[in-house]
Amino acid sequence: MESISIGLLGLGTVGSGVVKIVENHQDKLTHQIGCPVKVRKALVQELEKERDLKLGREVLTTDPAEVLNDPEIDIIVEVMGGIEATKEHLLSALKQRKHVVTANKDLMALHGPELLKTASENGCDLFYEASVAGGIPILRSLVDGLSSDRITKMMGIVNGTTNFILTKMTKEGSNFEEVLKEAQDLGYAEADPTADVGGLDAARKMAILSTLGFSMNVDLADVKVKGITGVTGEDIQYAEQFDYAMKLIGYAHRDGEKVEVSVEPTLLQKEHPLASVNDEYNAVYVYGEAVGETMFYGPGAGSLPTATAVVSDMVGIMKNMRLGVNGKSAVHPQFTKKLKESSEIKSKHFLRLHVRDEVGVLSKLTSIFASHGVGFEKILQNPLAAEGAAEIVVVTHQASLDHFEDILMELKDEETVHSIESTYRVEGGGKA
Amino acid sequence: MESISIGLLGLGTVGSGVVKIVENHQDKLTHQIGCPVKVRKALVQELEKERDLKLGREVLTTDPAEVLNDPEIDIIVEVMGGIEATKEHLLSALKQRKHVVTANKDLMALHGPELLKTASENGCDLFYEASVAGGIPILRSLVDGLSSDRITKMMGIVNGTTNFILTKMTKEGSNFEEVLKEAQDLGYAEADPTADVGGLDAARKMAILSTLGFSMNVDLADVKVKGITGVTGEDIQYAEQFDYAMKLIGYAHRDGEKVEVSVEPTLLQKEHPLASVNDEYNAVYVYGEAVGETMFYGPGAGSLPTATAVVSDMVGIMKNMRLGVNGKSAVHPQFTKKLKESSEIKSKHFLRLHVRDEVGVLSKLTSIFASHGVGFEKILQNPLAAEGAAEIVVVTHQASLDHFEDILMELKDEETVHSIESTYRVEGGGKA
Repeated sequence: MESISIGLLGLGTVGSGVVKIVENHQDKLTHQIGCPVKVRKALVQELEKERDLKLGREVLTTDPAEVLNDPEIDIIVEVMGGIEATKEHLLSALKQRKHVVTANKDLMALHGPELLKTASENGCDLFYEASVAGGIPILRSLVDGLSSDRITKMMGIVNGTTNFILTKMTKEGSNFEEVLKEAQDLGYAEADPTADVGGLDAARKMAILSTLGFSMNVDLADVKVKGITGVTGEDIQYAEQFDYAMKLIGYAHRDGEKVEVSVEPTLLQKEHPLASVNDEYNAVYVYGEAVGETMFYGPGAGSLPTATAVVSDMVGIMKNMRLGVNGKSAVHPQFTKKLKESSEIKSKHFLRLHVRDEVGVLSKLTSIFASHGVGFEKILQNPLAAEGAAEIVVVTHQASLDHFEDILMELKDEETVHSIESTYRVEGGGKA
Repeated sequence: MESISIGLLGLGTVGSGVVKIVENHQDKLTHQIGCPVKVRKALVQELEKERDLKLGREVLTTDPAEVLNDPEIDIIVEVMGGIEATKEHLLSALKQRKHVVTANKDLMALHGPELLKTASENGCDLFYEASVAGGIPILRSLVDGLSSDRITKMMGIVNGTTNFILTKMTKEGSNFEEVLKEAQDLGYAEADPTADVGGLDAARKMAILSTLGFSMNVDLADVKVKGITGVTGEDIQYAEQFDYAMKLIGYAHRDGEKVEVSVEPTLLQKEHPLASVNDEYNAVYVYGEAVGETMFYGPGAGSLPTATAVVSDMVGIMKNMRLGVNGKSAVHPQFTKKLKESSEIKSKHFLRLHVRDEVGVLSKLTSIFASHGVGFEKILQNPLAAEGAAEIVVVTHQASLDHFEDILMELKDEETVHSIESTYRVEGGGKA
């Protein structure tokens, strides 16, 4: 091969990073692949926009077909985002036997199996390392580095925006709305932050991670999602007092044949490796039967970090091209998906509630827990400013989700309980 | 292929782990490779030893030739250790076109290039993920996951024994000898701990990491080594007081075309990701021009963790066998090695010394530093129990190693200086 030609769909944050890395690291790429790499076409929305890139004007186009149908292009790099139209673009590219690299978690979480099948049928590679945890090579680590092991648990801080917000709330004692505003000003949160703070972005990544880590097709709809909009300063203060860190954790657990996948604000014991992952950083903790505890840490977003993952995928494809083995490294799920029932989902729980401050209330509450067989690890009562009211904070021992939900129902009906202020999953003690 | 046959050289801690993983995860291996994997022969020292393994008696042999020359064996897995004889075994295996997996850092640090060349010439794979940081897939991450990036810095806690010892010394205030004894009793340190506590083991791993990360042949002899035997409780106390963690850090830095590689006890700023890697755990921090800061964390030793890396390498080879592309993924160094001069090696330095407690001493000392253009970040003086003596502790600003060494020479000649108690590199502030 004289050179390998890339077609970019999208030239925004990540796309610009790809162009820069291809240019700045051309010597390393050429050394590894044996020929130069060229960006031949790039789909953009505006031709005339000012760009700090060394790309000829003739490379840019506003017509997807000019990229997708260019016979000289070997690899399509999709960094434009979007779902339905983007999916059609990639299917069209694959059917023309062009390899694909995508950074699109939304797309892969929803249509991954179909796209991967089409790639396989057409002898093409479809790589998507950048779709989860930006620059951290976590998908390769699951598929190659830990290929001999059986992974039983993954916990991820896979959304930088929410980690930035929770870190700030913890360090500065500020409230959610304030910090969100600051994150938006700094560019760590988007103008519409719903997908981030609502947990959807993390859920998409956990669907992708679980599919690979557990070797079964886990869909986005299988992921139980709760965002961080309800996290209060009080909750974080109690977390600190109890020696926990408040983190938005993507939790994926396998127990025999069954799995659970969720994203929720979680109180994590301080000694857990994820507890010290702060600011906008991401990390994925992986527990394997044989290897034990591992963690992969790095930048979860950003132009150059994400582009590193994209271009490393390109290198993988180009090495396969040289060897003539494209389309043969796809991973086919080994298992049929089986989800845990709520009676099989077990964790410790944090619960904060406001009650009437009178004799016998605590005894009434604790008897509700006892009747469901749930014991306490920690319990704390504080008077509230309001006359005759108190705040009770509880961390339970390990309990199944259905028992905990039954307890919440009974507490809601209990007249001495004014309100259930918050509940959180508690993790980080046990290992598997 | 009906099945793939493995020949084990060694059936100790790691070898037993390999046998267990091949047995327990046979379904996953078969799913990935398309055929079963069998351990056909295993070289042992004693045939009659009690072993908790499901291996037929006919598999064991005390004759290396029975493993190396068995025509049915596809992959030789070397987990016996040793250097010269082991090297001959592996050269013989490669020349018979058998692929090799080795966990042998001593061998790879000394004879890696020769072995890799022989593998390449014979169309064989030679993989050695387990030689560095046990179960952490760090070599693959450098070669594949970060293939598009230019790595400028690696810092590793790559020896579990010394990390265990330093963590204990820090948490319990105990001294080196006590903790070493405890580590030996717990099996975290060997009866002869010299290679671990002297830093040689870590140096071998840093030679391997630098060779891959910087794409140049870095030899063991290029690594400057200082062990932890001189680390005292006083040093650790000052470290804590200054908000540093005392760690044995393998440090590899590239500046333009030149590199430095060292292993030495280092004061690491507490906010650095490596500072919270404790006990027997390992981690490798990698800084890439584009990706920024990443870290790979996990168990650095142990039977099953290390065996995970070995068997994952086996899976890599077996996938290549299926595709017919063995011997084609070797990485050839892109650059000729160039080592930094001591005038080009820069860091902050910690220095603790005992001086005569009289007027003008501090002024004399500080003028020595000033005459070499080295300033202070921190300086602390404490009285000593001995009459008329004081302890001075200093952290310098960034200074070149030759300047710092010149200062040490002058301090030694200075009559008001009783003794230089300790010096350490200080790291963790800057990023690249």
